[in-house]
Amino acid sequence: MVIDLKQCVELLKENDNFLVLSHEHPDGDTLGSAFALMAALKRMGKKRAFRCSDELSKDFSYMSDEFTCDDVGENPYIIAVDVADTHLLGDLADEYGEKINLCIDHHMSNAYFAEKLLLENRAAACEIVFEVIKELGVEIDEYIANCLYTGISTDTGCFRYQNTNAKTFRAVAELVEIGVNTKMINKLMFETKTKSFLELELLARKTLEYHFDEKCAIITITQEMYKQSGSNEHECYPITALPRQIEGVLVGAVIKEKQNGAFGVSVRTEGDIDASAICAKLGGGGHAGAAGCEIKEDYETAKSKILAAIASSLGC
Amino acid sequence: MVIDLKQCVELLKENDNFLVLSHEHPDGDTLGSAFALMAALKRMGKKRAFRCSDELSKDFSYMSDEFTCDDVGENPYIIAVDVADTHLLGDLADEYGEKINLCIDHHMSNAYFAEKLLLENRAAACEIVFEVIKELGVEIDEYIANCLYTGISTDTGCFRYQNTNAKTFRAVAELVEIGVNTKMINKLMFETKTKSFLELELLARKTLEYHFDEKCAIITITQEMYKQSGSNEHECYPITALPRQIEGVLVGAVIKEKQNGAFGVSVRTEGDIDASAICAKLGGGGHAGAAGCEIKEDYETAKSKILAAIASSLGC
Repeated sequence: MVIDLKQCVELLKENDNFLVLSHEHPDGDTLGSAFALMAALKRMGKKRAFRCSDELSKDFSYMSDEFTCDDVGENPYIIAVDVADTHLLGDLADEYGEKINLCIDHHMSNAYFAEKLLLENRAAACEIVFEVIKELGVEIDEYIANCLYTGISTDTGCFRYQNTNAKTFRAVAELVEIGVNTKMINKLMFETKTKSFLELELLARKTLEYHFDEKCAIITITQEMYKQSGSNEHECYPITALPRQIEGVLVGAVIKEKQNGAFGVSVRTEGDIDASAICAKLGGGGHAGAAGCEIKEDYETAKSKILAAIASSLGC
Repeated sequence: MVIDLKQCVELLKENDNFLVLSHEHPDGDTLGSAFALMAALKRMGKKRAFRCSDELSKDFSYMSDEFTCDDVGENPYIIAVDVADTHLLGDLADEYGEKINLCIDHHMSNAYFAEKLLLENRAAACEIVFEVIKELGVEIDEYIANCLYTGISTDTGCFRYQNTNAKTFRAVAELVEIGVNTKMINKLMFETKTKSFLELELLARKTLEYHFDEKCAIITITQEMYKQSGSNEHECYPITALPRQIEGVLVGAVIKEKQNGAFGVSVRTEGDIDASAICAKLGGGGHAGAAGCEIKEDYETAKSKILAAIASSLGC
């Protein structure tokens, strides 16, 4: 059942023991939402605990360090934040998938799996949690402001992506006024590069090749490169954006060798070219500007197949 | 004479013919300020012209394309925007340096060279121009909003630098609500990399070396690299930030060979380490977090000198 802000606030006031869940491979938005909400519940005298299927990156320790779980008993009120579907709970899906009492989310693709759903089309779940905490009447301190800023800034690529709108900027103005440590957070989230990532980037960059009159650029990342650089699949995300950032390139693709030998392909496109249509030809999908697919072939065949799909999208 | 917003608006209302000047090597803020102000003056029925000592990058054509200069006669009212000192007018300094009627600026280091000065400690001059245009009562359309957003977003590194504050976010919320083409502007200003820059970056990255227990990272850019990549000194700015972005690095330096054979050094520091103190030892200067100096020696000597200055700042 879809609920509104006031109904959500009533549910939080009515209950006393909460378990808050983040999605697998937790990012700034799901963690910022969870820790901000838990801090607010704590300030209301409630008991709250947290679970996530995966370990948290140490980059987020400024949010989680002050946090310890309370004993919330056998039947806590279970809240999932920034979770669009139960399978995104990862290893916790079986245990909690059908027991979620409340989901607070901003993905319009939400699967309506929770008993109650607070859903708004905002740039980040943290924007909605911000509204919830204000409506609860809990004073927003610097810790909560840091959590909420983390979610909003990371889900918008530091206010660069197209989901960023006037509401986003207004929410952030309020948070910054309360006192966000933007210096520390921006440095951690957007400025810091690990040595292993830099090595991986250098190796990957050397594979850059252009096709179709330089309208297409392709980069390849192999398992051997992860070994050589000391990096891993989780770190390679920023490289995914690179080919399409090159002047004049309309379709950028990154071919990533997986541990099982298959190739995952990330496609990013410019203008009217539909990335999801390119990937759909190979059994994948996604959005108009960013999509992906998996090809279970050897490297040369995989590359030929993705090039053929791109060629057709470029009208070559 | 320092004036306030209302006095500035009176001056703009009183006069009819304006010449607006941007600083040399014009960036998004000086151009955004100039073109937004000129658009407002035009909508008030005033005549206005524009001058800048250097050519405008084609990336800014969305601001300047609709613009043609009016005949403003022999004695226009001369306004400098985002210009902290007369020498920053470049080749126009001799002609106009002592004739500036009004300067609108956000650099607290402003040299008070203009007859009237509207100075505020804001993230961008465009934030002040935004206030001026609102006070003038001119309706802010998408063209003006695009100009102002360009200045604010570029001077804050897309809201990432420490000068970004609640006022900045509030101003941008208003502009985005009016209708800014953030997709086009963010792509042009922050996403696009030229092929020559990518080549230069790759060559420069190969020179990366660590010193002092990996607390210092240094990159070198030579004239030969500009030739080989087809790039140039103007494009190398983003590389300047790279060494200090590496995890664990406290001092990052980029040594750039100049056409005259000297070496310009850009130093960026983390935490308490003072970049301007490092550069002051070699006759340079700047801010606590970012500074520069020039060393007229051969490469090895130049590197030794900057390393010695860094060592002392790190207490090595």
